[in-house]
Amino acid sequence: MTDFTPTPADRFTFGLWTVGNTGRDPFGEPTRPPLRAPYIVEKLAGLGAYGVNLHDNDLVPIDASAAERDRIVAEFRQALSDHGLVVPMATTNLFSDPAFKDGAFTSADAQVRAYALQKTMRSMDLGAELGAHTYVFWGGREGTEVDAGGKLLSALGWFRDSLNFLAEYSEAQGYGYRFALEPKPNEPRADIFLPTVGSALGFIGTLDRPDLFGVNPEFAHETMAGLNFAHAVAQALDAGKLFHIDLNDQKMSRFDQDLRFGSENLKGAFTLVKLLEDSGYDGPLHFDAHALRTEDEAGVWAFARGCMRTYLILKDKARQFDADPEIQAALAEYHRADEELAALSRFTPENAASLKERTFDRAALGRRGLGLEHLDQLTNDLLFGIR
Amino acid sequence: MTDFTPTPADRFTFGLWTVGNTGRDPFGEPTRPPLRAPYIVEKLAGLGAYGVNLHDNDLVPIDASAAERDRIVAEFRQALSDHGLVVPMATTNLFSDPAFKDGAFTSADAQVRAYALQKTMRSMDLGAELGAHTYVFWGGREGTEVDAGGKLLSALGWFRDSLNFLAEYSEAQGYGYRFALEPKPNEPRADIFLPTVGSALGFIGTLDRPDLFGVNPEFAHETMAGLNFAHAVAQALDAGKLFHIDLNDQKMSRFDQDLRFGSENLKGAFTLVKLLEDSGYDGPLHFDAHALRTEDEAGVWAFARGCMRTYLILKDKARQFDADPEIQAALAEYHRADEELAALSRFTPENAASLKERTFDRAALGRRGLGLEHLDQLTNDLLFGIR
Amino acid sequence: MTDFTPTPADRFTFGLWTVGNTGRDPFGEPTRPPLRAPYIVEKLAGLGAYGVNLHDNDLVPIDASAAERDRIVAEFRQALSDHGLVVPMATTNLFSDPAFKDGAFTSADAQVRAYALQKTMRSMDLGAELGAHTYVFWGGREGTEVDAGGKLLSALGWFRDSLNFLAEYSEAQGYGYRFALEPKPNEPRADIFLPTVGSALGFIGTLDRPDLFGVNPEFAHETMAGLNFAHAVAQALDAGKLFHIDLNDQKMSRFDQDLRFGSENLKGAFTLVKLLEDSGYDGPLHFDAHALRTEDEAGVWAFARGCMRTYLILKDKARQFDADPEIQAALAEYHRADEELAALSRFTPENAASLKERTFDRAALGRRGLGLEHLDQLTNDLLFGIR
Amino acid sequence: MTDFTPTPADRFTFGLWTVGNTGRDPFGEPTRPPLRAPYIVEKLAGLGAYGVNLHDNDLVPIDASAAERDRIVAEFRQALSDHGLVVPMATTNLFSDPAFKDGAFTSADAQVRAYALQKTMRSMDLGAELGAHTYVFWGGREGTEVDAGGKLLSALGWFRDSLNFLAEYSEAQGYGYRFALEPKPNEPRADIFLPTVGSALGFIGTLDRPDLFGVNPEFAHETMAGLNFAHAVAQALDAGKLFHIDLNDQKMSRFDQDLRFGSENLKGAFTLVKLLEDSGYDGPLHFDAHALRTEDEAGVWAFARGCMRTYLILKDKARQFDADPEIQAALAEYHRADEELAALSRFTPENAASLKERTFDRAALGRRGLGLEHLDQLTNDLLFGIR
Repeated sequence: MTDFTPTPADRFTFGLWTVGNTGRDPFGEPTRPPLRAPYIVEKLAGLGAYGVNLHDNDLVPIDASAAERDRIVAEFRQALSDHGLVVPMATTNLFSDPAFKDGAFTSADAQVRAYALQKTMRSMDLGAELGAHTYVFWGGREGTEVDAGGKLLSALGWFRDSLNFLAEYSEAQGYGYRFALEPKPNEPRADIFLPTVGSALGFIGTLDRPDLFGVNPEFAHETMAGLNFAHAVAQALDAGKLFHIDLNDQKMSRFDQDLRFGSENLKGAFTLVKLLEDSGYDGPLHFDAHALRTEDEAGVWAFARGCMRTYLILKDKARQFDADPEIQAALAEYHRADEELAALSRFTPENAASLKERTFDRAALGRRGLGLEHLDQLTNDLLFGIR
Repeated sequence: MTDFTPTPADRFTFGLWTVGNTGRDPFGEPTRPPLRAPYIVEKLAGLGAYGVNLHDNDLVPIDASAAERDRIVAEFRQALSDHGLVVPMATTNLFSDPAFKDGAFTSADAQVRAYALQKTMRSMDLGAELGAHTYVFWGGREGTEVDAGGKLLSALGWFRDSLNFLAEYSEAQGYGYRFALEPKPNEPRADIFLPTVGSALGFIGTLDRPDLFGVNPEFAHETMAGLNFAHAVAQALDAGKLFHIDLNDQKMSRFDQDLRFGSENLKGAFTLVKLLEDSGYDGPLHFDAHALRTEDEAGVWAFARGCMRTYLILKDKARQFDADPEIQAALAEYHRADEELAALSRFTPENAASLKERTFDRAALGRRGLGLEHLDQLTNDLLFGIR
Repeated sequence: MTDFTPTPADRFTFGLWTVGNTGRDPFGEPTRPPLRAPYIVEKLAGLGAYGVNLHDNDLVPIDASAAERDRIVAEFRQALSDHGLVVPMATTNLFSDPAFKDGAFTSADAQVRAYALQKTMRSMDLGAELGAHTYVFWGGREGTEVDAGGKLLSALGWFRDSLNFLAEYSEAQGYGYRFALEPKPNEPRADIFLPTVGSALGFIGTLDRPDLFGVNPEFAHETMAGLNFAHAVAQALDAGKLFHIDLNDQKMSRFDQDLRFGSENLKGAFTLVKLLEDSGYDGPLHFDAHALRTEDEAGVWAFARGCMRTYLILKDKARQFDADPEIQAALAEYHRADEELAALSRFTPENAASLKERTFDRAALGRRGLGLEHLDQLTNDLLFGIR
Repeated sequence: MTDFTPTPADRFTFGLWTVGNTGRDPFGEPTRPPLRAPYIVEKLAGLGAYGVNLHDNDLVPIDASAAERDRIVAEFRQALSDHGLVVPMATTNLFSDPAFKDGAFTSADAQVRAYALQKTMRSMDLGAELGAHTYVFWGGREGTEVDAGGKLLSALGWFRDSLNFLAEYSEAQGYGYRFALEPKPNEPRADIFLPTVGSALGFIGTLDRPDLFGVNPEFAHETMAGLNFAHAVAQALDAGKLFHIDLNDQKMSRFDQDLRFGSENLKGAFTLVKLLEDSGYDGPLHFDAHALRTEDEAGVWAFARGCMRTYLILKDKARQFDADPEIQAALAEYHRADEELAALSRFTPENAASLKERTFDRAALGRRGLGLEHLDQLTNDLLFGIR
């Protein structure tokens, strides 16, 4: 048993907005003062993180002058350099300002759409300056409350046009970004466009440069729709589109909670970590969460340590799972391959004819017990540290 | 005001399993006797329906002999011919038999996967014989309760291999099917693969012949995930992939209810009907629902009439919406085009540079009221028949 | 058909916080400036409202001096008098201030609990000064994210002690308040204590003076838990505990939306209005909702007008429902009384013995169709204005 | 570390319908043959269970003759005696037969209501004969899909009349039952009456003999409504009304899953077990769940062993939690008592006056960090077996 202390080799990242969250919520005022970005960098480095991510306005206020911007960015780069942190991902805040109240790329107002393009180009410049290789689009305001507005089809077109424009901008500027769409079903909008990981994967197929686009699935977002997050990540991996990932936690079918990773769904978190580790995913492991509003600054760092620690605990359990003979025997019993049938299941007219006439013992297939209660209990025992 | 009586020109279809539902549920026995398929055909024709759809085993029992099968099919075709109904869509029952208890195309047992291919080929033969042009895949058993089984990535591969095989079979046989994937988030499995319309759209992009595949969205299924069904249909239309549609109703985030179309979400049904009518969708309008378990056979036909009547009522309201000057004025106020900005938003390095330097009045954009409460109340008034 | 314009006789009320909502949300800044309380009073009166409700800090800032408080209250009373509005209900803001971040009456910190008592007594004084007869407790911060804190049983005890204390305070001061508990399942806390109308009804039975306590059910809150709001209101009416009601709208199983009354669930709103009107409920009809964030001030008043208009439309439809012969015939068919059985179903040993031996035709009872698809379609037709 | 093997002293019980479940679901046929009741008794005894519970028709078919009934019951009693199992709880099947399709005690048909009384009296006789002390009412069919039926208020009255009748019957017969209401939000009905534990607690207060009635909360049912089960159990304990408990597991906001206890929500199960053990609850611990449909009989017993094993593992972890100095220190930091304020918070006019004038440092209360991220991570570490 290790002590589960992270190092930069673990590729853990946090957003400035996550550990910097002040505890404001729809019904209450902030409970913690804001933290300055260079201080966050120093603290995260001290905890063993690998990088820090940001929206443009996490670092530079929306109304900063060019000189202020340059001073702030220089100070932040110095902190990164001093403490050895990188910025693997950047993104645009297209949701806080009232201008975006009905969407950014999908606003029914052409001026808002154009302003969103401008703001994103500038933010992409900033990200590139800080060394980011992944650029995330979370379209939090892209959606509706009132479908009588009649923009459903137009909005998808505007969204596509904007993403196509920005991909070309990235290429023309030589930024080389990989873009990651981050789906969410609702909140702050009643219904957000591209609500699930699948929706984003489907939409990518309609873009001019699908190769430049992938997804940034978030545990809480998929869970809000009552969906199994590991299943969504598997589909992204299957499609070669897992460009980034947002780790946190959430109870199903309710408001966006952004809880400490693994704090609520211990088993779901294990399934996910095992999938990520087995798949060879080697991108950043980003915690898009924040400390409970009950916490002071000490609680914020306890939260950050906890996210990373839980990941490492589960990674170790995934290793144990693979090494456990009884578990591996149950898996072998469950998975039944058949070489002959596999060959027949590659289509040729002859194979199809042969397969169509073959005799299967349907009743026997129905009777066979799959041993999943046993396997699942072994897994729970392992999670409980009982084996 | 018309009398909202359907005719075949309205393209309304029902499944044998829908009006034939006997009212069995997880906690109770059937409350109605089964209806014979030819009788269903006769009754639906009398109500003004256009067609009837089926799973293989809705018509032919899974253990029927070849002779029985032929007799049943002949009798059914005679009824179709007698009453002027068509079979636009067919599908396979890959969920009732215990053999499929852990999936059909995604079972961890190679024999089950091969048997599912066989059963589907035979069912495709039946569909072709009955004249069906659309073939639906609802993978109700494709999923998991126990992710420790470790089949998430394998399952997506097996699913893809099966769909590729069957598409080639259709082409080789000259059936010319268009395939429609029907997503569902859960039930009967804890988590079904390809849980949302978006997931299906994303998956189609990974198939060998994506052109042959589209989606069959179902109101209840998307609603079970707390998603806005019209948004999902809009994404399918945007991608050119709305191959079929299942109309019914459902409360969010609960068990699969399959209620009479428009019985629960009056407004959501209106949004959908307007979208379908505006989009020019000209495929079948299939009601995948069933009468409440409290009903006898008279209630079944009341249910079927109600589905069609409500669609026609809403279609008429969509026409009124387009003709209402006050509503159209509110829409014009909401949608703000700008020719110059539209031109700039087509990427060239020069346009990008120009857009990046342009001045926007962010505060003014934030202040502008969009009039959506007004527009939405007008819409509700229209739905209530008050304007 | 009337023109659905409200008058004070309709008993419609709004909160200062509802039409005064500035559009701030978890992801964005305010989109509208705050409105002064006397201005709200003037505007609501102009729209035909009956009253206005408030939290202490909607009117008086938490850090106001005594002199400021008195000046603000005097100005507000003058506005009420000038425009003929009353204040039927008052309540305490025990959620915005960071002091209440882990609860007010159920904080694990005795100082916070005592401070909450103080703040509530002062707010009750204010309410009494303004003429309020109903005092609402919405325990938005009473709950947990972390159950390891181990306060579940203690918290219910602290909550009860506080309510008992405040009821005695009201009686000792001669305020004569009726107290109404307002349940909510979650948000802002992960799990709020007394999450449903039923929970509040159950808890009232454990108080010292249950006669002084009832409930203030809110459409959105019960709907967030996927529950049928009219069912909850029926239970409150059945128990004689409907002391107040919060009308708004919401999609199931998601964040708190506080939409315009009747904007989303047209049918659920009808069921509710019919129940309220049939029951003889004669308390205020309070709209605890706010305009969409997309709206400017004009949109706010459109929102307020829409809430009242929809109620009146549905009240008129409830009247039509009662007068519709076909609907009444369907109802008569559905409800089957039996005098003899009713008599036997009053317990005596003899009745029990007689009932136990009686012969029932179980199969016939199972076969009878209840006509609910027909009745429900008639109801939808009525809602659509088609009959 | 023990080996977590149960004994009758652990008071674990199962229903005949749980381990006897055949795997039928809404979309599929049974995957396992039924098991005879005496065989179930033998097997459960062998696994270390304490008792077995039943619906009347789990044991005696609804159409059995009196002689058949007596033979079946005698054989069952012999098995109980042979294997040392007790029947602590009995209940009535008021949901499977078509007669109950629109409710039993709340059917709109007086004949159905009377038949439900008869069936329940006979089932109470059976339970008493088998030695049951607790009688459960799960009103699975008591509810609606169509609220236009207008029975909401009547139904609550009929429900109350029936419960009052049956309580008198129990007393008159000398059965001495304690009655436990089991709430569920939906399924099989769209909306079931008394949907949550709180609703049942509230309703009990309206009965003639509230002392005889308590609740039988079920993990899955409360979770289906997105509610925190431990919170509901705490309210039942607080009210002295936890008469029985149904343990299983479930994902939120979806169909009724009845999963193996602790298989899904490891942390929620821990919170619950700790609450039960701390509270001194000494009633039966009933597992109302069933093996996955993928399992054969061996899987059924693996499932049953797993339920009990997980409870014992969590009970052991609850003990560790109480003995862990770091955890106890975090708890002590979180809970802040204050003798002086506690005294002031007992109402007297003087205490109220004193409390009203006291000075609180609101800002300091808001600043204090509560250490809950730390405490929660310690708890997770303990659950993971890392401390």
